[in-house]
Order: sequence, then structure tokens, then C-alpha cells
Amino acid sequence: MGFHDECGVFGVYDHPEAANFTYLGLHSLQHRGQESAGIVATDGTSFFQHKGMGRVGDVFRPEDIKDLKGRSAIGHVRYSTSGKSTLKNAQPIAIEYSLGKLAVGHNGNLVNIDKKRRELVEHGSIFTSEIDTEILVHLIATSRKPTVVDRIRDALSQVNGAYSLAILTDKQLIAVRDPYGFRPLVLGSVQGSPVIASETCALELIDGEYVREIEPGEILVVDSKGMHSEHLEPAPRLAKCIFEHVYFARPDSHLFGRGVYETRKELGRQLARESHVPADVVIPVPDSGVPAALGYAGEAKIPYEMGLVRSHYVGRTFIEPRQSIRHFGVRLKLSPNRDLLQGRRVVVIDDSIVRGTTSRKIVNMIRAAGAKEVHMRISSPPTTHPCFYGIDTPTREELIGANMGTPEINRYLGSDTLAYLSMEGLHRAVGSDRKSFCDACFSGAYPIPVE
Amino acid sequence: MGFHDECGVFGVYDHPEAANFTYLGLHSLQHRGQESAGIVATDGTSFFQHKGMGRVGDVFRPEDIKDLKGRSAIGHVRYSTSGKSTLKNAQPIAIEYSLGKLAVGHNGNLVNIDKKRRELVEHGSIFTSEIDTEILVHLIATSRKPTVVDRIRDALSQVNGAYSLAILTDKQLIAVRDPYGFRPLVLGSVQGSPVIASETCALELIDGEYVREIEPGEILVVDSKGMHSEHLEPAPRLAKCIFEHVYFARPDSHLFGRGVYETRKELGRQLARESHVPADVVIPVPDSGVPAALGYAGEAKIPYEMGLVRSHYVGRTFIEPRQSIRHFGVRLKLSPNRDLLQGRRVVVIDDSIVRGTTSRKIVNMIRAAGAKEVHMRISSPPTTHPCFYGIDTPTREELIGANMGTPEINRYLGSDTLAYLSMEGLHRAVGSDRKSFCDACFSGAYPIPVE
Amino acid sequence: MGFHDECGVFGVYDHPEAANFTYLGLHSLQHRGQESAGIVATDGTSFFQHKGMGRVGDVFRPEDIKDLKGRSAIGHVRYSTSGKSTLKNAQPIAIEYSLGKLAVGHNGNLVNIDKKRRELVEHGSIFTSEIDTEILVHLIATSRKPTVVDRIRDALSQVNGAYSLAILTDKQLIAVRDPYGFRPLVLGSVQGSPVIASETCALELIDGEYVREIEPGEILVVDSKGMHSEHLEPAPRLAKCIFEHVYFARPDSHLFGRGVYETRKELGRQLARESHVPADVVIPVPDSGVPAALGYAGEAKIPYEMGLVRSHYVGRTFIEPRQSIRHFGVRLKLSPNRDLLQGRRVVVIDDSIVRGTTSRKIVNMIRAAGAKEVHMRISSPPTTHPCFYGIDTPTREELIGANMGTPEINRYLGSDTLAYLSMEGLHRAVGSDRKSFCDACFSGAYPIPVE
Amino acid sequence: MGFHDECGVFGVYDHPEAANFTYLGLHSLQHRGQESAGIVATDGTSFFQHKGMGRVGDVFRPEDIKDLKGRSAIGHVRYSTSGKSTLKNAQPIAIEYSLGKLAVGHNGNLVNIDKKRRELVEHGSIFTSEIDTEILVHLIATSRKPTVVDRIRDALSQVNGAYSLAILTDKQLIAVRDPYGFRPLVLGSVQGSPVIASETCALELIDGEYVREIEPGEILVVDSKGMHSEHLEPAPRLAKCIFEHVYFARPDSHLFGRGVYETRKELGRQLARESHVPADVVIPVPDSGVPAALGYAGEAKIPYEMGLVRSHYVGRTFIEPRQSIRHFGVRLKLSPNRDLLQGRRVVVIDDSIVRGTTSRKIVNMIRAAGAKEVHMRISSPPTTHPCFYGIDTPTREELIGANMGTPEINRYLGSDTLAYLSMEGLHRAVGSDRKSFCDACFSGAYPIPVE
Repeated sequence: MGFHDECGVFGVYDHPEAANFTYLGLHSLQHRGQESAGIVATDGTSFFQHKGMGRVGDVFRPEDIKDLKGRSAIGHVRYSTSGKSTLKNAQPIAIEYSLGKLAVGHNGNLVNIDKKRRELVEHGSIFTSEIDTEILVHLIATSRKPTVVDRIRDALSQVNGAYSLAILTDKQLIAVRDPYGFRPLVLGSVQGSPVIASETCALELIDGEYVREIEPGEILVVDSKGMHSEHLEPAPRLAKCIFEHVYFARPDSHLFGRGVYETRKELGRQLARESHVPADVVIPVPDSGVPAALGYAGEAKIPYEMGLVRSHYVGRTFIEPRQSIRHFGVRLKLSPNRDLLQGRRVVVIDDSIVRGTTSRKIVNMIRAAGAKEVHMRISSPPTTHPCFYGIDTPTREELIGANMGTPEINRYLGSDTLAYLSMEGLHRAVGSDRKSFCDACFSGAYPIPVE
Repeated sequence: MGFHDECGVFGVYDHPEAANFTYLGLHSLQHRGQESAGIVATDGTSFFQHKGMGRVGDVFRPEDIKDLKGRSAIGHVRYSTSGKSTLKNAQPIAIEYSLGKLAVGHNGNLVNIDKKRRELVEHGSIFTSEIDTEILVHLIATSRKPTVVDRIRDALSQVNGAYSLAILTDKQLIAVRDPYGFRPLVLGSVQGSPVIASETCALELIDGEYVREIEPGEILVVDSKGMHSEHLEPAPRLAKCIFEHVYFARPDSHLFGRGVYETRKELGRQLARESHVPADVVIPVPDSGVPAALGYAGEAKIPYEMGLVRSHYVGRTFIEPRQSIRHFGVRLKLSPNRDLLQGRRVVVIDDSIVRGTTSRKIVNMIRAAGAKEVHMRISSPPTTHPCFYGIDTPTREELIGANMGTPEINRYLGSDTLAYLSMEGLHRAVGSDRKSFCDACFSGAYPIPVE
Repeated sequence: MGFHDECGVFGVYDHPEAANFTYLGLHSLQHRGQESAGIVATDGTSFFQHKGMGRVGDVFRPEDIKDLKGRSAIGHVRYSTSGKSTLKNAQPIAIEYSLGKLAVGHNGNLVNIDKKRRELVEHGSIFTSEIDTEILVHLIATSRKPTVVDRIRDALSQVNGAYSLAILTDKQLIAVRDPYGFRPLVLGSVQGSPVIASETCALELIDGEYVREIEPGEILVVDSKGMHSEHLEPAPRLAKCIFEHVYFARPDSHLFGRGVYETRKELGRQLARESHVPADVVIPVPDSGVPAALGYAGEAKIPYEMGLVRSHYVGRTFIEPRQSIRHFGVRLKLSPNRDLLQGRRVVVIDDSIVRGTTSRKIVNMIRAAGAKEVHMRISSPPTTHPCFYGIDTPTREELIGANMGTPEINRYLGSDTLAYLSMEGLHRAVGSDRKSFCDACFSGAYPIPVE
Repeated sequence: MGFHDECGVFGVYDHPEAANFTYLGLHSLQHRGQESAGIVATDGTSFFQHKGMGRVGDVFRPEDIKDLKGRSAIGHVRYSTSGKSTLKNAQPIAIEYSLGKLAVGHNGNLVNIDKKRRELVEHGSIFTSEIDTEILVHLIATSRKPTVVDRIRDALSQVNGAYSLAILTDKQLIAVRDPYGFRPLVLGSVQGSPVIASETCALELIDGEYVREIEPGEILVVDSKGMHSEHLEPAPRLAKCIFEHVYFARPDSHLFGRGVYETRKELGRQLARESHVPADVVIPVPDSGVPAALGYAGEAKIPYEMGLVRSHYVGRTFIEPRQSIRHFGVRLKLSPNRDLLQGRRVVVIDDSIVRGTTSRKIVNMIRAAGAKEVHMRISSPPTTHPCFYGIDTPTREELIGANMGTPEINRYLGSDTLAYLSMEGLHRAVGSDRKSFCDACFSGAYPIPVE
């Protein structure tokens, strides 16, 4: 609980409902960013764009969608805790440059770009936002290569980091995934028209079909002649984000070739194998902890129950009581199911612990509801390092896992016992070659060193 | 005169945070009505009120709460499908009358009131809304009794139906529950101050304590001298709404002396006993079907899985695609978890079937996701009759259970098999004296005949 | 400047654009009230209503107007400085009562109603607002007379005060003016359909025609059989509001049988005759002082100039500078035209002085812009008494004219000279029998004694 | 690339209320643009910006102003009929480039920029809006000169057209006016801090003082060392916009060294001299026609009256009647004062005629109000050519003066007589060397040929 990725992207090529489908796709990707949303559409000549702060359902009114004319479109949702939450940072970025029109939506994060930014600025490029995507756009605009695809390749050869890109020109839809493969990006189709999306769940809502992943390092170009792919220089290794499996992706998505829900159940099973504790009931922290809790309960043969009920009506501008209500912030979202907890030994399953403050409130609230024992079980290793590749983690100072050992954290939370999943268990559960995943947030082993 | 439809009430007496707590209480009761919300507060002299259309979080801005001065308050949330969804029908109703100031929030529905309304109108009473609560208010205002409590008793002796009332005067908080006990109403306390609420879950958010139910026929008066109770004439029978247990109340509430979650699990267990079918997986229609599915799965020893993922971002003004997307309305809320469904024999647990259209879409969507068999299991008997006591059911014409037999409904839904819980099973699971519950929506046996 | 009347009313009978025309009529009457607006329409069976806080253009969206079905409608605009500015006080009041449906819009103010209110409350009537109109509605509802017109007459026989009423039933449009004739009310027609309005300017916008005034004491009933009039008991005297001529009505209206603009010019001419002063330029305080300034300038043979420019963009939520800007509040609305003022002897014409604070800022601002002399001339006598008949004047304590003599006020304003119009001059300019007008705000001679 | 259309700029240097004053300044300049507004402020290190669509009072909430930190700021208001009315075109444009931070607000319009734009694009510059100001910004960013002032000079040496610029860096406030002097720009001071503004009226509201005009071709730099000026290459001639005097500037502004109000009165006097007609009354089309009508009336010795009353409540989203109301669009804004017009010979003074449709409605409305004769008098020559330098005129096809002679226009309007001011009369009234003004909208003599 508590991590926030920066973005989700979506694109559709040559369909009469391009903007509508992009709107729906963004709706399905909102767990990846609820702070701003934008769509750029093209009728083959002009670009039409609409961006705004807030949720997809609030940013776009029916008349806005209607104004997004044409048969191709890309969209973007974004979240940031950096405090720079203003419209100028919303994506996609749409520009005119020497080859015509271009719009870019970016999920991920470029690293080590200060020098490149300085060079661009020396050359006369101007920056109007705080997002790294603007550098990509300038590199494309100042490239001397003859075609947009050559220029994209040229631009990307000069930067490093995580990027899954949805790019729109007046004639093409282009999908790019960095050679490390940090962030997901999939190809689908709807009623015969190609679609790209950060996650497969975005295909479900529009009744589309999943085709395949965009491969690490692939540049997929869709135009009137069909689809073709080119490839960027291979990276020294693959580095698919393991945290997408642990927490970030939606459970009904297929990620890096594997179902997220099943992976999370296996994380729970592995957790049960590693740190079984006698108990009466296994409860998830909903909704993210549900699959792991089901896995844990099944493996541990302890009944699974909904011991915490999640409210569906958490508003944005909440009014706080002046006097303190214990664990108020958590109570708003979660309510304890007293009958299930009273006098019981409770195993609580969550996906991760970031600062520890919310987990502490949850432990206290469960105990206040009458639980005899509270055993915290986390379906990933301690989060010890910030992510520089597109997940919005706090600094090391704020990460409880970077500053305390597990016994200390257990005392801080007030739980009877606390156990994290082991690193080995994590990789075994994800079922993959360890070298193909980035687990830097748990290990500090950054695939691309950060200056 | 429209139906009162679904509502929730809340009240707090003599607490410095009266309006804040009422706001939070309404927040917890929003599943009972999201169409309008209102609060009336008093400082012992004046009344302060704020009402509006929409959700609690949208109706009240911080400055609105601040203007609701005083140490006592009542609040109300409301839902109606009668199409008369305007501000004039929002509650509480606040008036000045011969004994001073009075505000009333009503959950339930009065029946057979046309004659009484005519009498009032003859007497010179005026009506400004379409809600039956206005009749109560006029009966109180025109009563010749000397005190407000006498007048409430006098007024209620002239009407019939379902009512759980939160009443505020400049000096008193009064809770009333009709002698049949149709709708729930509980007494709690927060930091020493008395609280009344439609459901116990409203006590959780404010860290309050559950004290007891307001009894059927009880008039509980809270004033500066403390609490005392009076009682209305007993009804011929009790008629607690069994549908609150089946669907309407929140699972973490304690209802009519029993935990809702546990009751629903037992409904699921009973359902499994009655209509077991060989299958690979049991999935709920989230979130309402979750406890029954857990019960069913446990009893049937079939794995429980989250085969449908619920979206948390369903907006109010959604943009529909022009071309048809199959099962679109349901897709917006629910997404199938393909890996879990593909090639499987699936038992789907839902609490009830109203018109059948949504269930049909769900069955089709699950099958389209690859399920080999789809077995629909409903944790209540067929819904065959409309409710006249405060649940917003459609007319008999629209109720599929009133117009088709189970095999026919099974064909309509497209499921392989369909089974409802038996009436006996329902009552056994609820674990009560059958005569003390109203099951008219399933049986047509209306406790109070409706003209 | 600074007075505010309570209300304007409008009504139309049997026209396919009833709600549209009422909307436009209210738009033209907004100088009479910008705080809330409401329309009730009828299709002969049902009532449709929409009310809201704010200006007509903000309260009604096109879909709101569309929902106001039917061929007859009444509307109301309201202003109040009493601080009780909430939706519950917005008009028209629409009710159901023993004879069916009734809606009332009221311009004016009833007096001495406390006893009547007590009687109603004793009888069992309830009050939900703070407006006196609610008493009228209850008196109609509780009357024993057989028809609505009889009941209106019955109700009005029990109250006293100022009232110009627009009343709608499902079959009738009824216009009533109190026997004193305090407030204006006119009959017009648009495309053959009868229209009533507070002022003739409301007829202009809809291209309607002026027919005649509703007479003091007249009850005009319009229904499917045509129009007919009844009359209330005559009052001891007439008491048409002279302040409507001085300030309140729009200059393009015809009021009490006379053009407002021409009357105001004559007030200016008379003022020049009474208190001529040698000067270089005559300037109005725009817009209300314009006609009197034109009259003064013509009579005094001094050039008329627009020495103060009025801003058209005064917003509602203005941001004030933290450091003091001299005369800031006035600057926002009015800007001095330096070239016209520098080194000049300036006569400034305004219609009245209420508290004196604004006039003082204007004098200072004109002097700061370089004027050599500033001579304040007011086109009415000193305002010394509050109005109880529908103009929103402050209390005697706040009225500078009630607490200082003219020389003292002159010193307070900082003007070189100050002169008011004489009472005789006022009546001569209005050109009427002195006894037929109410001049209580200048004389304290209240036509109806106020308890 | 659209026209720059109508705009206003404002800037203040080193004052604790920089953003507040800029807000107020924009408020005073709203007649120059009500479509979007923006402010950029600096604390000497960071830039803070807020832009939005709509009026100043709606775009900025108090918290927005509070976030605009620092002691220096510039602001911009904009109007455009080009249909490209979106946020991306709002100004000021704020960027980061090789010398740091820069923000530009532009009033005017560059011409012949297609080639320069192509060059920039070839160089790799990207464009994100449709406004010509973006070219300026790119020319500054790509210039090789060492300082921002050198770069501004370098950039401006490569473009041509009309520009009054307010430029902000983290250390400087810079005001620039093109060598032709098309648009006004003045220097003022408030409480010792330098201020720049499009018009002097913006100084009034903040109680500031007028210092002098920014000269044509002047670059005024304000920084911590004080103020100094540089000069661009002189233009072949001056070309101050004569239409600012005729219509666009506010009457209380001092423009090009002369009071606007007095100039407009003189236009009216000259008009009376040139085309006197016997009449009973002279009326202005308010508010723009007021000064010329006063001049005309004085010279012609015919009484001046407010024959048309202007409404102050014209809303943005007006509801139109379904059935036609004659001259509806004009009626909303203007109402005829029947008493003044009935049976009279009326001279109507307006500043200009663009398409003729509004004038036609006004003539018809005055005649329908009973006027015996209607004589239209225009205080400028026929508008025959579009403006390319910052006034939003329609194309020649739409300009009635470009397509009909005066007798034909007279017939179209339905007036008895129509007369325009002569070109000689215009220049005489403005009282200047004819060669120093641009009168292209009347003459077609464009100071800078447009490709």
C-alpha cells in the first residue's frame, strides 16, 4: 500500500471511436495515475487535444470527447507526489516540429539527463514543463534524421532509463519500450484496429483482444501500410519491474507474460511456507492484499475472511474532526469487521510497507476491534530503496525498511509478529529468471546506475 | 406521493463536534442513499441546516460544516428512483411550529396515507415536497398534545408503515422505530455523548461504541436530564426487513442483533448445501456477493477466487461508446479475470436478481472470458414482489422473478444452471423466528396490507 | 446608491414559451434582486419549479428551463442584506393545499404579522422559511372560502403592508397589488398572451406591449375564460413608493403612469434650481445619477461630462490588496477621468446618500484626481428613516441623514458644498398629488404604522 | 498561426504585492481581452504561474494569487475570435532556456513570420501553441547573444509587426514597444515600484502614477540597478493605432499622449460639423458611443439623452427564446427608452460599423420604439480593411464598409440618413501628424505590407 506509479498510456489507430476508446482505456488505467489525464487525437491532418487535472471522469466532459476528432488517438494518465502537480506537466505533449505534428505519452522515468538537457538548452531548446518527456521531444525535434522513426531511434540512443511510449503523428501510431523492459506495454486489437496499452486490463473494457507484449527495445510503427517493428540497441540486461507484479498492476492484467492475480496468490503461498504462524483467520488489507491473502490462507489452511471492509465513497475534500479519532485516516477507507476479529488470532496480509504509518494504524485498529493476536505478513521483501524508473517511492529517509530491521518495525507497528517475503521467495513466486527483473526497490541493485 | 425509498439517518446529542460527527456518520451510511444529503444542527436556540443533491463528500464543503453550529445534530442520506429527484425532497425537514423548532429525518415508508393527507389538506396544511415524511411533520404540528413527545406519539398513532426516525428539537434528540421494526436503528455513544444511527458501521468511523438497538415501537428521548424511553402501541407482529441481511446493510454492521457478514456467509453455506454443483471455482459478484461466496466455497470445498475485478473509478457522467461494446454497462464496473475463468467450471454467487439484465451480462462476460460452465447461485429466493417499506424495488412487471420460473430465467441469463436459496434456507440462515421478519419481497406476504 | 429592494416578479399565461419568457423577464428585473431567482411553471396539471442562489444567468441552465414545462409560469428575483441569504428563502413558494396547487411570488413586505403568525402556528401551520410570504400562503391554505380567489381575498384581509403578488395555480395566473399601491405591478401582453411584471422594462426584452398598471387593491385573474378583476377593500390613502422614481426602478421603465428617466431629469432640474453653484462641469455617479445629472446640467447650463467611468467587470469574489489602496472599494467600480476633473469646479450628482461612506470615497477620489472644487448634489431629500415596505434600507443608526445635519455631512464627505433636493422639490418633480405617494424614507411619515 | 488578436499586458517590479497588483491591473484591462488571463510571478529564483480560460475574476481564486509568490510579476489578458480559444494559447508563455527563466506577454501581432517559423523548425524548435509569440520566444532561446536584452534585440531584428511586450526574467522586468509604435504601452509607478501597462487606466485602480509612454522602439530594462533604455532600429515611419482612440482603449485612459475621452468628444464635434442633420435628440449607443455623442450634441446644439439603456447583467450562457423576438440579440444588451424616442427625430452616435447587423437591429429597435426619424452618425470612416496588427477585425468579405457604399449601407440599416466621419476629420480630431498613425482599417494603407 502507498506506492504510486507515475503513468499509464493508451493508443488506438484508425478506428471511428478512437477518442472514446482512449477515454475508456484511460479509465481502466486510472490505478496508474489519477492526478491528470489527457488525450490527443488526429484526423490525419490536425491534432485535437484535451488535458486536465483530476480523474478521467472529471477531466473529460462529453463535449470534450466530441471535439477530439479523428480515427487515431493516444492518451495518458499521471500521478506525482513531487508537489509539482500542475497542468503544464500533464501529458501527452503535443508539438509542431520540422516533420509536422507529434504527440508523446510517456510511462517511466529517464535518468542521468542533466547533461543532455544542458546541451539542448545551449542549442536553443526551451522547456515549459518539469517532466523528462520534454527532453525526448526536443531530441526528436533537433535530430537531423530524415524520418520520425529514425529520429525517435536517434533521440532514444542519447538517453537512458525507463520508457514505455505511445507516440502519435498525423499518420502513425508508434509504440516504444525501452531495451531494459522496465515498464509494461502491450499490443491489442479492437474490432480490427490496433491498440496499445500499459496493461491488458485496458483491453477488457473496450472488448478488445490481447495480441502480445511490445518487446523490450521494440519500436512498433502502425500506419496505413500496416505494422512493422524496428529494434533499439539491446540493453546489457533485462529489468522488468517486479513491483508491478507485487502491487502496481491491476490483478486482472497479464503482465510480462503472466497473470498478476495468480502471481500474487503464489506470493501469498510462498509467504505462508516461509513464515507460517498458528492463527484463526487470514485477512487481506483490501483491495491490494486480496490475492496474496487467498494464497496464504489456502497454503496455511487457515480460513480467509474479509476482516476489513473498504469504503467506496472516499471523497477528495474530506472534513476532519477537530478532536482526534484514533486511526482516523485509515478508518475512512477501512472499517474493521468486529465479529471476525474479536478474540481471534489474525494474520493480516499486505503487499508492502512504505513508511509504516498506515500499517501501524491498521494493526492498532484490528487490535482495538478485539483481535487476540495480530500477525503482519508482507508479500514482498522490505522496501529499502527508492525507484528511479517510474514508481513514485519516497526517499530512503522515509522508507521504514531502510531505517529499521524487521524486529524494530514489528515493535513500531505493534504487531505480535511481522514477516516479509524473502528475496528468493519473491523471485521463485514470480517464477522467472532473476536476472530479467529489476528488484532495486528491495535490493538496491539498480540496473542503470543513477548519478 | 412517491416512495420514501432507501435512506439512512444519524444523530448526535451534546457533543462539540456534532456536525462533524454527523457528516462522518452520513459518510458511513452512503450505501443507503447517495442522491441527496442533509444535516440540521442546533445550538439550543437556532437551527442551522445544509442540504444538497449528490454524495456527502460533494454536498458539504468545510465551510458548510462550520456553519452548522451547536452541540446536537441529525443527518440524512437518501436515494430514490422515482424520478422525483430534486432538492425539495431532500431531508431532514426543518420547521417552525407551535412548540418551537423541529427537524425530522426518516428512513422507511408510510403506507395508506392518502386519506390522512386529504384530512390535513382540508385542515389547511400545505405540502411542499413529495415525501411522506411531510405528513408526519404536519400531524405533529397540528396535534393538540402539550409536548413534542406526546405529539410524536399522537402523530404516529394515525399512520402506518415503516419508519426509523431521527428527530431534533432545540433541546432534544429523539429516536423512533416503528412497532414492526422494519428498518434498523441503533443507539451508540461517542466520548460519552449519545448517538443514533441506521447501522452500527456508522459508529465505527467516529470510534464510537455500540450500545443497543432502538426497539420496535420505542421512542427514545435524549435531553439535558438524560435518556428515557416510551413505547408506541405494539404491532400485531414484528417485521424486520430480511433484505437488509441479504443485501442492503453493510457487511461490517451488526443488524437486528446479528453480524451481517456472518449471516451472509451462512446464506452461502446454506445455498451450497441446497444446490451444490461440481465446479472448479467459486466467484462472487463483488462486493455484495463476497461473504456468501466465501460461505459457499467453504461449504462446497471449491476454491474461492476473485474472478471479477471491481473498478474503483466509476464516474458519474460516463461517456458511452457509440458502437456497441458487449456487456458495456457491466464492464465499466466489473472486469473478468481471464486466467481464473478460462476452461473452468465457474459458480457465480450473487445476492439477488432484480430485472435480470445485469446478471445476464455477467454470465455472458464470464463465458466470453473462456469459462467452460457458468452456474449462477443466488443467496436469496426469487425476488417476486416490490417493497413498500423502504427498499427501492421496481414494480412486479419489471421483476424477472415475478414473471418467469427459474428454468426460464436460467435460459434468459444463458447460465448452465441457476439456483436460488429456498425460503426455508433463507430463514434458517438468518437464524431467527420466521414470524419476526418481513420477507414480502420474496413471498408477497405483506405485514401491512397496502391499499 | 446603496439601497436594495427585495424583489421583482413576473408571470405569463398560456404561451408556449412561458418559462423562456419568464426567464427573460427576470433577467430584465435583476436590478430588483440578484441574490436568488426562481420559476414555477405549470402545464395545467403538474407544477415544475427551479430555484437557486445567485443571478438569473447562473441559476438557470438551458436544461433547467427545458424542464419547466407548460404554457404558464411565474418567476421571482430577490435581494436581502439581512444575512438570511439561503435557498429556503428563495421564491416563488410552491405548495399543494386543499384546492390543489399554488405558487406565490411576492414583492413587498407585510407588517405587523407576529400575531397572525402565532395564530397560524397555534392552528398547526408549519414554517420552513423566514419570509413573510409564507404567512400569506398559510392564510390561503387555512381559509374556509370555496375558491382560490376568495381565499386570496380572505387572506389579504387579515394582513397589512406592501405586496405586489404573482400567483400561479394549475389553471390561473393571478396578479394582486395592495390597496396602498406601494410597489409597482403592470399588465402587458406578448403575442396575445397576458403578462404581468414588476416593471415595464421586463416587457421590452420579450418584445411585449404595455397594457396598463394593475391598480392598487386590484386582484386580476387570468384563466381560460379570459381576464376579470376584483378589488380589495380600499386603503385609507395611496402610498406609491417615491423611492422607485428616485432610484430603484430602471430608467427605461414607465412607473405609476410616468417615465422614470424623465422624472429623474426633472429631479435634476429642480435640484439645479434649488441649489445652483458656479462650476465648470456636472458629472453623474454612474449609472443611477445619469438622468438627474443631465437634467441638472441642462438647467444650470453647465457642461455634462462622464467624469467617472464605470467598470463592467466587477467580479463577485474579488481579491483585495493587503496594503491599503485609497478608496479601493469605489475604485473597483468607478474610475476618475482625470482630464475632465483636473483644475475644475465639479458638481457631482447622486440620487441619495445612505451611510455616506461611498460618497465620501467618491469625493476624495475626485479631489485626488485634481478637482479644484467638489460640490455634491443629491436628487432627493436626506434619507432619514428605514423602509418597512420592501426597500432594504439600513437602520436609523446607520443612516447618515438620520444622525447628522447637512453641514455636518458636508464636512464628513469632504465636499466643498453639499445640497439635497427639498421635499417640496421632490414632490413637484415627481409631479403628483403628494398624498398619493409614500415618502416615509425621507419624512418618517409611515402610511401604515409599524409596531 | 492565428492572429494575436486583442490583448492587454501588465507588469510590476519589486513590490511585495506584485501578484495582487498584476491581478488588479488585468482587471482594469479586461476590455482588451476577456477570454483568457494569466500571471507569472518570480521571487528572484523560481517562476510561479497561473493561467486559465475566462474572465480575470473567474480565472484567479484567492489561493491562486497566494501561490504567485515573489516581488515581480507580469500578466496578460487575451481575446480571439479565431476559434482557437484553448488554454494552450493563453499567455504569458513561461520557459526555461539557456540563460535561465523567461516569461513573455505580448499585445500585438507579428506579420510575415512563416519563413522564420520554418527556419526555427528546421533548427529543431518545437511549437506547442498557435500564437506568434512563441516565435519570439524561440528566437530569444536560439540567439547566440550573451545577455537576454541582446537576445531580445536580436530576436526582434528578425521579425516585423506590432508588439508591446511585458517580459519577466528572474531578475528583470523588460518592456518593449515595436518601432512603429502600433500598440500603446506605458510606464507608471506604484508606491515607488515601476509598473508597465497597456493603458493608463490600469494605473488608476492600484492608485499608481503615470510616468510616461514606452517609446516606439524602446527596450526598457528594470533590474536591481535601476532602469535603463535601449532602442531598436527605427522603423520607416510611426504607425500608432488610430482605432485605439476611436474605440478600443478605455475612455479614462491617456493614449499616445492624449486623453481618449476628449479625443472621442472631438470626433463627435467634427462629425456634427461634417454631417449635421436637424433633429430633436442625440443618443449614444452605450457605452462606447457616449463621448462622441456628447461632443456631437454640444456642437449641434441638440439635446443629449440616454435613449438606449444598457443592461449590466448580460450572462454568458444565455437562453434564447425558440420563437423569434425581433432584434433579440441587441435587446439583451440595450433597451430603448420609449418616452425619449417616441415621435422624435433621433441622431444615433456609434463609433464604427463592422458587419452592420447590430446597427441594423438598433435602428429597427429605435424606430419600433416610435422614433420619427433615425439618423445614424459614425464617429470614424467606413471600416474597409482588416487589421493585421492586433485588433480583431473580420475579413473584408464580412466588413459591410468594404462591400457597400454609404447609401447602400443606409438602406441596409433602414436609417433615414447615415454619415461617417471623413478621413480628414478623423485625423484632425485626433489632432496629430497624419503620418504618425496607422489608419489601415479605414484606408487600406498598411504600414507593413502583409504577404
